[in-house]
Amino acid sequence: MISVTAQPMQEAPEVIPVMRPKLPSADHVLPYLRRLDSSRIYSNWGPLVTEFEHRLCEHFVLPAGSVVTANSGTTALVSAILATAGRATLERRYALMPAYTFVATAAAAEQCGYEPYLVDVDAESWALNAQTLLGHSALERVGVVIPVAPYGRPVPQAPWQAFRAQTGIPVVIDGAACFDGITAWPEPFVGRIPVAMSFHATKAFGSGEGGCVVSVDEPSQQKAFARALNFGFYGDRVSRSAGTNGKMSEYHAAVGLAELSGWKDKQALYVDVIERYRRKLGAAGLLRSFRSAPNVSACYALYVCSSASESARMQAFLDQRGIDSRLWYGNGLHHHVSLKDAPRDDLQVTEELAPRIVGIPMAADLPDSAIARVVSALVECLAVGRSTSSTEDVTYSAAAQR
Amino acid sequence: MISVTAQPMQEAPEVIPVMRPKLPSADHVLPYLRRLDSSRIYSNWGPLVTEFEHRLCEHFVLPAGSVVTANSGTTALVSAILATAGRATLERRYALMPAYTFVATAAAAEQCGYEPYLVDVDAESWALNAQTLLGHSALERVGVVIPVAPYGRPVPQAPWQAFRAQTGIPVVIDGAACFDGITAWPEPFVGRIPVAMSFHATKAFGSGEGGCVVSVDEPSQQKAFARALNFGFYGDRVSRSAGTNGKMSEYHAAVGLAELSGWKDKQALYVDVIERYRRKLGAAGLLRSFRSAPNVSACYALYVCSSASESARMQAFLDQRGIDSRLWYGNGLHHHVSLKDAPRDDLQVTEELAPRIVGIPMAADLPDSAIARVVSALVECLAVGRSTSSTEDVTYSAAAQR
Repeated sequence: MISVTAQPMQEAPEVIPVMRPKLPSADHVLPYLRRLDSSRIYSNWGPLVTEFEHRLCEHFVLPAGSVVTANSGTTALVSAILATAGRATLERRYALMPAYTFVATAAAAEQCGYEPYLVDVDAESWALNAQTLLGHSALERVGVVIPVAPYGRPVPQAPWQAFRAQTGIPVVIDGAACFDGITAWPEPFVGRIPVAMSFHATKAFGSGEGGCVVSVDEPSQQKAFARALNFGFYGDRVSRSAGTNGKMSEYHAAVGLAELSGWKDKQALYVDVIERYRRKLGAAGLLRSFRSAPNVSACYALYVCSSASESARMQAFLDQRGIDSRLWYGNGLHHHVSLKDAPRDDLQVTEELAPRIVGIPMAADLPDSAIARVVSALVECLAVGRSTSSTEDVTYSAAAQR
Repeated sequence: MISVTAQPMQEAPEVIPVMRPKLPSADHVLPYLRRLDSSRIYSNWGPLVTEFEHRLCEHFVLPAGSVVTANSGTTALVSAILATAGRATLERRYALMPAYTFVATAAAAEQCGYEPYLVDVDAESWALNAQTLLGHSALERVGVVIPVAPYGRPVPQAPWQAFRAQTGIPVVIDGAACFDGITAWPEPFVGRIPVAMSFHATKAFGSGEGGCVVSVDEPSQQKAFARALNFGFYGDRVSRSAGTNGKMSEYHAAVGLAELSGWKDKQALYVDVIERYRRKLGAAGLLRSFRSAPNVSACYALYVCSSASESARMQAFLDQRGIDSRLWYGNGLHHHVSLKDAPRDDLQVTEELAPRIVGIPMAADLPDSAIARVVSALVECLAVGRSTSSTEDVTYSAAAQR
C-alpha cells in the first residue's frame, strides 16, 4: 500500500463502476403496468409475457414460439436442460461444461441433478470445442453438454448439432449474454440446440431479472421449456415432468417490453461509447488488447492483458485510481470453493486465460471523462509496468488480492 | 352430460373464478419504481429489497435480519434447504415431505438433489406429525424433513425443534401460504426452524412472484439463506456453497412494499368476504364444512366434502353453473406423473382427505352476488346428492374428470 500513501493528499476521484445498468424509466414502464390493473394477471404467462415473447421472436426474426421467457438466465438454462436431457441419472450424472464461465452454468446443472465436469476451453474462442470433445473419455457418463458463449461471443449451432447427432448426448448453450449477438452475427447461432439467455440488469438488454430460451424446434420441444418452468404443468394441474417455478412475471415482462421499445436507442449509445473507447485506445496503441461489441456483447469492455501478473497489477492500479474492474468469470469455476471437488480435465488454457481478461468500465452512458480516465490509467499502468517489470508484483500484491 | 342439456336454453352466467388476485395498482407501485430511476440498481439486494425485508420484520414483529426475500416461494424453500441441510448426499438422499402438498415442495427438494419421500399426513392437522415421524424407518437415509403448513395452517415450531434435536436431521417448513397466519396465531410459528413463504399473486399477500425465508436464528444462518439465493456468494465473488439465482428484484420489492402499505385494507376486505360467506353458509346449515381465515390463509375458501364422490359431484355441479373450483393440492403428490415412482409410505389419510377439500371462489373483492351464487349451488348440489345418492356418480363422472 506504499504507493497510496506516497500520492499527494487530495480529494479521492469519484469511483467509476465497472458497470452501471440503465433500464427503462418508470415512465416508460408505467403504460404496461397500467394494463395489469385491468387484467389482474400478474404471472403464469399472462398477456404481457405473451406479448414480450412474441415481440422477441420478431426482434430475432424467428418463427413464433421460438422464445420462452423465464425468471432468470439460470432458470432458462435449467429449463433447457430439463426439457432436452431431463434430470441426471446414476449412469449419466455429469454435465460437461467449460471451466471458463460464470458460476450460474454449474448452478443450473446442479439444480437438475448433474455433477459439473469441467473441461478446458479453446484459447482463441474462449469456449468449448465440439470436435475435441468427441473423443472425451467421460462421454459415457455425460447426460448433457453445456457450451458457454463467453461474454456473448458466438457459439455456432452446426458443430454442436453434429456432436449431438454423433453422440446422442443433449446439448444446451449457455448464451447468457447473447441478446445482441443473435442479430449481429452472420452465422446461425439459433437453431435446434436451445440457447439460454439472461436479461439480468447487468446485461446489454435487461428486464431487471429475467431470461429466455431460444430455439427453432418442434412446438413440443418449446412446450417442454415452458413445462419445466412451471412445475411440469402444461394445460392442466398434473406435473408431468421435473420442473420448478421459473415463470417470468408480468412485471418483468413490462420492463422487458419497455426495454425492447428503447433497444435501438440503447444500442446506439453502446456503439458510441465503444467507438470513443476505440479511438482513445487506438491513439494510445492499446487497441489490439481491447475486446468489445460486436465481438462480445455491448455491455462488456474487456482488456486482455499479456500475463496474469500484468493483469493483477492493472486491477490494483485501476483500483487505486477509483476505477472498478472485474474478472467477470473469476479464475474459472474450479477456483470456487463450492466447486473445488468437481471432476475436471487439465485446465491449462483456462488457468492461463482467465486471469488475463479484465472487465473495464462500461455503461450505455459512460461519459467521455470516464473513458479518458480509464484509458489514461491503462497507459500509465503499462508504462510503470515496463519500467519496473521485476519488482511490481511485491508492490501491488496486497491490493490485487482484494 | 345429460343434466346440462336438460337445462333450459339461456345465456351462460359469467364464470366466477376460483381466485382473482388483486395486487397494488400501478399508481401505488409507481413511487417505488421512480426510485429505481435514480438508484439504477434493479436487483442483487438493492435499496427496495432491503427496505422490504426491514418492513417485513417490523410487520412480523421480529428482529432485523429475520426475513430474507427470494424470487419465489419455491426458491425460498430451496434456499432454506441448502442453508440448513446442503445438497443431498448418497447416504442421505431423501427429503421427507407430506404427500398432501403442492408440487413445489417436491420440486424444491429435487433442485437440491433430494429424492422426495412421501409421508402421510395427520387427519386433523392435514400436516406431518413430528412425534410419529421419530420412529420412521427411513430416517437414516433422510437429509431433510419438510413439513408443510397446508393452506397456511400453523405448523408449530416446538415439536419440530425437538425432532431436530433428537434426530440431528435439519427441518425446514414449507409455509408458502403463511403470511397472514404468522401474525394471527398465538403459538410461535417462527423460530429457529426456517419457514419459506410465497408472495405469488395467488397468495393473500402478493408481490407478483416472490417469497421469503423467515427465521429467528444466528446472523450466520440468515446469511446462509442469502448466499444460497445468490450462487453461494456473500460479500465477494467466490461461490462458497451451493446456490442459485433466487434474488428478489427491485421491481418485485416495489410491488411488495406497496402491498405491505395496503395490507390492512386488503385484509379487512378478506375478513368481510369471509364474514359474508359464513353468514350465508350458516343460514344454509353448511358452516361446519367451511374452512377460512384465520384457520387457513385468507386467500382460501375451502369446502370439506364428506366423501370423494360428493366432492367430484360438487365440482362438476359448480362447473356446470359457471363456478370454478379446485383441489389446490390435487389428490396428493403421488398422483403427479413426475412423482409416480417416488418412494412413499402408506398414504391412506392423504388418499381419503385430498379429494374432499374443495377450493371454492375467493377474492378480496368477491361480490355478494358471487357469494350468493356459490352458496346456492352448494345447497342445491347437496340436496340433489341426498335425493339421488345411488346414481349420481354415473351422471357426473365425465365432468368430474376434466
